[in-house]
Amino acid sequence: MVASQLAVVFSKLQTLFTSDHASVVSLNLFVALLCACIVIGHLLEENRWMNESITALVIGLCTGVIILWRSGGKSSRLLVFSEDLFFIYLLPPIIFNAGFKVKKKQFFRNFITIMMFGAIGTLISCTVISLGATYMFKQMDIGSLDIGDFLAIGAIFAATDSVCTLQVLHQDETPLLYSLVFGEGVVNDATSIVLFNAIQSFDLSDINFRIALKSIGKFFYLFSASTMLGVFVGLASAYIIKTLYFGRHSTDREFALMMLMAYLSYILAELFYLSGILTVFFCGIVMSHYTWHNVTESSRVTTKHTFATLSFVAETFIFLYVGMDALDISTWRVNDRPRTSLMVSSILLALVMAGRAAFVFPLSYLANLSNKSSSENISFREQIIIWWAGLMRGAVSMALAYKQFSRSGQTELRKNAVMITSTITVVLFSTVVFGIMTKPLIRVLLPHPKITTSMLSEASTPKSSTMPFLGSAGNSFDDNLGAAHRPSSIRELLATPTHTVHRYWRKFDNTFMRPVFGGRGFVPFVPGSPTERSEHNLLHKESSESDVCNF
Amino acid sequence: MVASQLAVVFSKLQTLFTSDHASVVSLNLFVALLCACIVIGHLLEENRWMNESITALVIGLCTGVIILWRSGGKSSRLLVFSEDLFFIYLLPPIIFNAGFKVKKKQFFRNFITIMMFGAIGTLISCTVISLGATYMFKQMDIGSLDIGDFLAIGAIFAATDSVCTLQVLHQDETPLLYSLVFGEGVVNDATSIVLFNAIQSFDLSDINFRIALKSIGKFFYLFSASTMLGVFVGLASAYIIKTLYFGRHSTDREFALMMLMAYLSYILAELFYLSGILTVFFCGIVMSHYTWHNVTESSRVTTKHTFATLSFVAETFIFLYVGMDALDISTWRVNDRPRTSLMVSSILLALVMAGRAAFVFPLSYLANLSNKSSSENISFREQIIIWWAGLMRGAVSMALAYKQFSRSGQTELRKNAVMITSTITVVLFSTVVFGIMTKPLIRVLLPHPKITTSMLSEASTPKSSTMPFLGSAGNSFDDNLGAAHRPSSIRELLATPTHTVHRYWRKFDNTFMRPVFGGRGFVPFVPGSPTERSEHNLLHKESSESDVCNF
Repeated sequence: MVASQLAVVFSKLQTLFTSDHASVVSLNLFVALLCACIVIGHLLEENRWMNESITALVIGLCTGVIILWRSGGKSSRLLVFSEDLFFIYLLPPIIFNAGFKVKKKQFFRNFITIMMFGAIGTLISCTVISLGATYMFKQMDIGSLDIGDFLAIGAIFAATDSVCTLQVLHQDETPLLYSLVFGEGVVNDATSIVLFNAIQSFDLSDINFRIALKSIGKFFYLFSASTMLGVFVGLASAYIIKTLYFGRHSTDREFALMMLMAYLSYILAELFYLSGILTVFFCGIVMSHYTWHNVTESSRVTTKHTFATLSFVAETFIFLYVGMDALDISTWRVNDRPRTSLMVSSILLALVMAGRAAFVFPLSYLANLSNKSSSENISFREQIIIWWAGLMRGAVSMALAYKQFSRSGQTELRKNAVMITSTITVVLFSTVVFGIMTKPLIRVLLPHPKITTSMLSEASTPKSSTMPFLGSAGNSFDDNLGAAHRPSSIRELLATPTHTVHRYWRKFDNTFMRPVFGGRGFVPFVPGSPTERSEHNLLHKESSESDVCNF
Repeated sequence: MVASQLAVVFSKLQTLFTSDHASVVSLNLFVALLCACIVIGHLLEENRWMNESITALVIGLCTGVIILWRSGGKSSRLLVFSEDLFFIYLLPPIIFNAGFKVKKKQFFRNFITIMMFGAIGTLISCTVISLGATYMFKQMDIGSLDIGDFLAIGAIFAATDSVCTLQVLHQDETPLLYSLVFGEGVVNDATSIVLFNAIQSFDLSDINFRIALKSIGKFFYLFSASTMLGVFVGLASAYIIKTLYFGRHSTDREFALMMLMAYLSYILAELFYLSGILTVFFCGIVMSHYTWHNVTESSRVTTKHTFATLSFVAETFIFLYVGMDALDISTWRVNDRPRTSLMVSSILLALVMAGRAAFVFPLSYLANLSNKSSSENISFREQIIIWWAGLMRGAVSMALAYKQFSRSGQTELRKNAVMITSTITVVLFSTVVFGIMTKPLIRVLLPHPKITTSMLSEASTPKSSTMPFLGSAGNSFDDNLGAAHRPSSIRELLATPTHTVHRYWRKFDNTFMRPVFGGRGFVPFVPGSPTERSEHNLLHKESSESDVCNF
């Protein structure tokens, strides 16, 4: 079985790679455009309106126009958005890097809020969009969309793309906001892809309670199995590197093993029909918590920057690709009535905004209820930013739309053509127009980020702002305070479980996990070492202003 | 035109990537095997006989056997060696890294010897093998091989694979030997690929003097144009990074730009039908001389290790692939008389050894003649090592053989099947048997490498041994001595031009190149800085024993 599958793949590789010069030309084009995006993105760094995503999108669009013009406007199927290229090669480095550089402490402290926004919120958003689309599109002449299509539309447009917003928010100035938007973005990506796959694999011709229950069960199975696989591969890499101590011989081996095992976690998940995106995210978290501390200093620098760069290049590539793909003439041609497409796009944009509003404000209210101190509350202005941050739609939406509405490249059906052109329109409009408005909006809503309460509440972890990877440091602080802490109000009572879990986790981590898998706490702490000294100074300097609202 | 080509590529990508699960399975297999190779290679590090290449080859063979066994022996075309996969994705990082980490000073000091071995030697070897094959195979029943085939055989088996040897030689213990073997390996790769492409593109039905002259002209055009393109792209990257000063904003951008531009140089060369291998090699040299010094400290660490790791992984992948590919049943089946194949393989092995002997010893004699001091002479024992170092045949031979003898995967012709199985046999035998014998052989021939004369002669550049990238440092030494240097014998007269050229180059580099393109000398030298101090100590410690044979 394996052999025949391999044979299929390799004969396909053969056909692909024997087209020498054509592939060389397109490779040249893409690499040159990527270089251009990087240089232009750098030059526009200080610009008030632009950001890297918009730059790549605009460059892609321009290239598309030039190619279209040079081919005399007749080139149909110019570039095909390959959703498998996207899911197998471009998405893993982005999500892995997200897990790798997430501030674990921030992430897990706000874990419940993030999960509420990312999982429940996405479900709400998906439901609102599905219902809205069902109601609105029935009155229009688009073709016969069945219930599976409507649910898929919900999942497609529930997938946010918070790259733009994260480029504007600063994790030192607004750490709570940043961690919420970032965390929600990752969980949201995973949720909507899992949701989409679940919808695609279900038989939706007859839905009853049992099937619905089964679906929910499957959803939770996917979620937990994927997470466990990611944690397992991450721990395996930590154990192998710690036990064999590669650094003794070669930095390159450590680095290669980390990179390969990270990718292995993703494709193993795909092999077992799990969610690779969740797996690789948790693999990234585990690797940054254990594996990364077991390697040599130069391996640390190398992995940190390489993962970030791969993610950055993949992101740029996706936006470039989306921009070039937007001009796929054949789809636009089938879609004979552009007014319909415009109507559909407007309706979808409105539904996206409504669907997001439907969960951000209620869930923020709930989150505020459970907060122990008012300093960690999400203010109304911050709620607006969170709402805005998830309005952009990006590559995940594109990929899912192609998966649903172009079965093996067939966009000739009227409904498919309309849905694909509408998705492209929504993605372009939201990324460019909403994206451009993000910087000014945030400046209006958070005029002086330096004095927001959320900043002070997190100021006790200066290390994580300078060294994102060491986010788990400074936890001894919390432990001491946590032990002396007595719940005295309903809010604190609600907040206690998280902290208790955190304390038990740290105990378990220190006594069992770190001796086996390595990690930061495993190496004895030397107070006078050069790397630690600077952190201590920072800690002392900032603790004076932050110890009131330390917890 | 571009558009239609892109359309072709992308529709092919589409077909490739829609085969979801099959490609996921094979990806899993390959990534898992790569991890296994790295771990096992690490465990066998201290082993007397094995090295990384042999490990990967053996693991590949075992996997091939298992897949063959599981498919019941009937799986034909199990794995197809895709020479385009090899030439477009796997070879560039290897060659770029070779250029990037070559000790420039060593390389250019021995430039004439290296070029003699690499270019003239390869031509001699190719001629000997071609003539020998023509003479021997005519008497055997293999099928009708024409003159183009025989020339191709010459080029295929002139491509050495010195990976094994370089893993055994240490550049600190035997710097002359290391730089000769390493330099020859790179130039040899380039020469044989250029030669092979030249042979393939020529009309060999009627050869006359004019065509032969034209071929030589084309060869030199390829050589110089490729080199210039590589230098140009390298300088462009240095200029862009120096002018825009990316580090101010982001390390990741610098790194991404270096990686992308390095790859761009390769595919640009392919676009213009030049030799990408030469281009990317010289791009690597220029980037390590200029660009690398313009980036931030963390970018330096990152690029250094990432390029090395990519090269390492690509190399492992190739050997794994060659191992798995060796069991391509269909080729072995067509080849109905295994005795013929065995005979052909033996003859080819003998020719490889003869062809290499035919240039190593004469050219070493010539090189010794032109040496100014006897301490830099290549001793007879070292000549044997150089001869041995190039006996292994590897991935380049495989790729070229497939290119010549399997037009779009057709190995059904008898002569093609025989030649491909013979190539596989030669590659496997030479890599495993010769490879295993390398370590003991070198230990016998160089029993105490610490006191060989060649080591002392190079001891004045301790920096390049600890920091391969800074190989051009310590040149001020040479400059001073070079100025005071008077040719006093025929040997020194012969050696003078190289040193004069070197001096003029350094003058030019310092006055014009470095101010424009950055590079090490551009930043003022601070004697007391921590990185420089340790080098100075080393310099002082070792200069006492080496200043006799310093030049």
